[in-house]
Amino acid sequence: MPQDSSHRPTDVRMKGFVRRWTVQDCMDWIEQQMPTPQQETISLADAAGRALAVDISSQTDVPHFTRAMMDGFAVVATDTSGATTYNSLTLNVVGESLPGNPFDGEVSSGSAIRIMTGAPMPVGADAVLPVEHTVIHESTIQIHGEVAPGRHVGLPGEDIQAGTIVLQRNRRLRPQDLGLLSSIGVQELQVLQRPRVRLIITGNELLPPGSNPTQFSITDANSPMLTALVQRDGGVVIHPGIIPDNPASILDALNTEAEIIVVSGGSSVGQEDHAPRLLAEHGSLDIHGVAMRPSSPSGMGTLGKKLVFLLPGNPVSCLCAYDFFAGPAIRTLAGKSSQWPYPSVSLPLSRKLVSTVGRTDYARVSIQNDLVVPIAISGASVLSSTTRADGFVIIPEDLEGYARDSEVTVYLYE
Amino acid sequence: MPQDSSHRPTDVRMKGFVRRWTVQDCMDWIEQQMPTPQQETISLADAAGRALAVDISSQTDVPHFTRAMMDGFAVVATDTSGATTYNSLTLNVVGESLPGNPFDGEVSSGSAIRIMTGAPMPVGADAVLPVEHTVIHESTIQIHGEVAPGRHVGLPGEDIQAGTIVLQRNRRLRPQDLGLLSSIGVQELQVLQRPRVRLIITGNELLPPGSNPTQFSITDANSPMLTALVQRDGGVVIHPGIIPDNPASILDALNTEAEIIVVSGGSSVGQEDHAPRLLAEHGSLDIHGVAMRPSSPSGMGTLGKKLVFLLPGNPVSCLCAYDFFAGPAIRTLAGKSSQWPYPSVSLPLSRKLVSTVGRTDYARVSIQNDLVVPIAISGASVLSSTTRADGFVIIPEDLEGYARDSEVTVYLYE
Repeated sequence: MPQDSSHRPTDVRMKGFVRRWTVQDCMDWIEQQMPTPQQETISLADAAGRALAVDISSQTDVPHFTRAMMDGFAVVATDTSGATTYNSLTLNVVGESLPGNPFDGEVSSGSAIRIMTGAPMPVGADAVLPVEHTVIHESTIQIHGEVAPGRHVGLPGEDIQAGTIVLQRNRRLRPQDLGLLSSIGVQELQVLQRPRVRLIITGNELLPPGSNPTQFSITDANSPMLTALVQRDGGVVIHPGIIPDNPASILDALNTEAEIIVVSGGSSVGQEDHAPRLLAEHGSLDIHGVAMRPSSPSGMGTLGKKLVFLLPGNPVSCLCAYDFFAGPAIRTLAGKSSQWPYPSVSLPLSRKLVSTVGRTDYARVSIQNDLVVPIAISGASVLSSTTRADGFVIIPEDLEGYARDSEVTVYLYE
Repeated sequence: MPQDSSHRPTDVRMKGFVRRWTVQDCMDWIEQQMPTPQQETISLADAAGRALAVDISSQTDVPHFTRAMMDGFAVVATDTSGATTYNSLTLNVVGESLPGNPFDGEVSSGSAIRIMTGAPMPVGADAVLPVEHTVIHESTIQIHGEVAPGRHVGLPGEDIQAGTIVLQRNRRLRPQDLGLLSSIGVQELQVLQRPRVRLIITGNELLPPGSNPTQFSITDANSPMLTALVQRDGGVVIHPGIIPDNPASILDALNTEAEIIVVSGGSSVGQEDHAPRLLAEHGSLDIHGVAMRPSSPSGMGTLGKKLVFLLPGNPVSCLCAYDFFAGPAIRTLAGKSSQWPYPSVSLPLSRKLVSTVGRTDYARVSIQNDLVVPIAISGASVLSSTTRADGFVIIPEDLEGYARDSEVTVYLYE
């Protein structure tokens, strides 16, 4: 780090990193630095995929009344004793019970009411006689079979008993969880807040996303990409991205209220790389320079309670460093798994995949005829290498690469 | 189907299904009936996860100018001929080129300009001399190595050539795809429309989602669950759900403008089951009654161009029938895979899992110590069986079940 900004630019830029941290150092740092996730109350309708901040127990039995579990007739079970095909008995049908529209009288010996699955059992009846054991007449039924007391009757609390914990803290809510919560009368619930992520995209050469590239300017690819990545990981992007590439603007942006700051561009050791210096001065630049390819000019640190990730401006490096470092932090805060958010497959390599011991490699590959084919690229800067790729292979730092035909794990982009 | 609504309810209800279709019949029907997905134009910022309706080709080279691929000095390559550590040559440094801030002069023999990675190459220079081959003085450099013409220079179109198709029709857009599209100046794009899904939740016993269950009413679990499922699958829910359980209201709802109608409740053959009858009268009820457990009282048909799915009101059956039938249709229209939207694992069964030949079973299971443990349940109606479960196993109709220790595929809820 330069102590004096009057140093000649070239002196500074060309120094390079004093040391390089390993990817594992970075992972360990992230784990140690993770702040406690914030909580918020949201409505049930918005809760799909969110992580519960508290255990939820039911205040009620589900169901909360005794009901029929089959279509048929609610009867006094002892009335059916001895009924067979050859010795049918007769009961008077005195009413019916439908779901939400119960029979409001009482069933006494000798009578029955027609009942549908899910309908409340009437007072006095203690079993449901299935319809196939009956012959139906105008206002009576002939019964051809017996039922035991309690048969085809669902009791309160059979699904959920009042007082039971139905879903535990940290549970990521599934569609059926919302159904369950609804059925026990939950309208609002306490979940982990989505981490607020401030994007800071710098680079004097950048035009706003979707602009036609002109002259010597290029169009920003990173803010649309990072926004989609952050959303995928459960974060909320609180700024579209590009800001002027000067220390005052960057410092102002670093001071945004947020849980996570993601800086893209100016992450290396040059005079024009303001963010690492500002972070070192106003907060703590704990890691700068990582033994990986691409993305070696990555850094991370803290500013107050915020985690700050410095990602290279190059789009491929930016994607790679985001997925290695910022992504797991954001997912953890959002209550998601910190693991790679990609499905994986294990397949043999079509040819050798070369790396260097001491460096973690992120190699884009395609899958052709069930073989993993490394994508030949002229430079790390080629964003189309990640759109042509089906996924990537990680070559850990203790390997020189993988031989042809080795089975490797491919994480599939999606 | 009753032809005459004056029939005694019991006669009708108790008839049961005339025949049952297989799950495969249903799949085949869905595939045949799938309407052509609609298209719409959306902005790049909203495009993550959406499916492209057209091929996209680049109107521009990326990059669109010649640039440095390394930090160093832009030079005339022939000026470096013969330079070594023992025979250094000297060049005048006459300016610099930064990304977005190019050198506006020309480089002639004997001079060099400082250049950063990504910065435009100045006119006259044809190579970048890496900084490690130089010693820097006030306004000159001593050079200690040679570079060949074109070395460390990136040419226009190296990432993407103008006219190339960069992303193909039906591609589900990934974060990096948004970056790429941005970089070629795409601000709006043509994607498949999210299918509009009208929910029709019926049942006189139902209270609105999240209500405290009272008396003999129960709280609707299906609309929050179905809403989350439809959103997961890329559809847009255009009605919150519950409507009065009478033919006029249901017919009115069936006539909603939408691509897909999902009816939950009243899907069987009873007098109170209005939707199948209405669909048969006003459209086409093609399938009614499926050889599966749960969810046998499911149906499907068409009304105009709409696909109509009749799902049982019981929440577990509703989830199962949604995932088997409505889900694949919605995902296909949204340009997603029609496959199960759950990760799967293959593990041995802790005990026998019994089914019946001729019927497809959807068995909820948990995973304990790497064994698949069927969840013992008293009834299909127990929604908590799907929240306690880690996933489900499908037992196809040609099997009687799986023996203990069989390896089975578990689809993991998430």
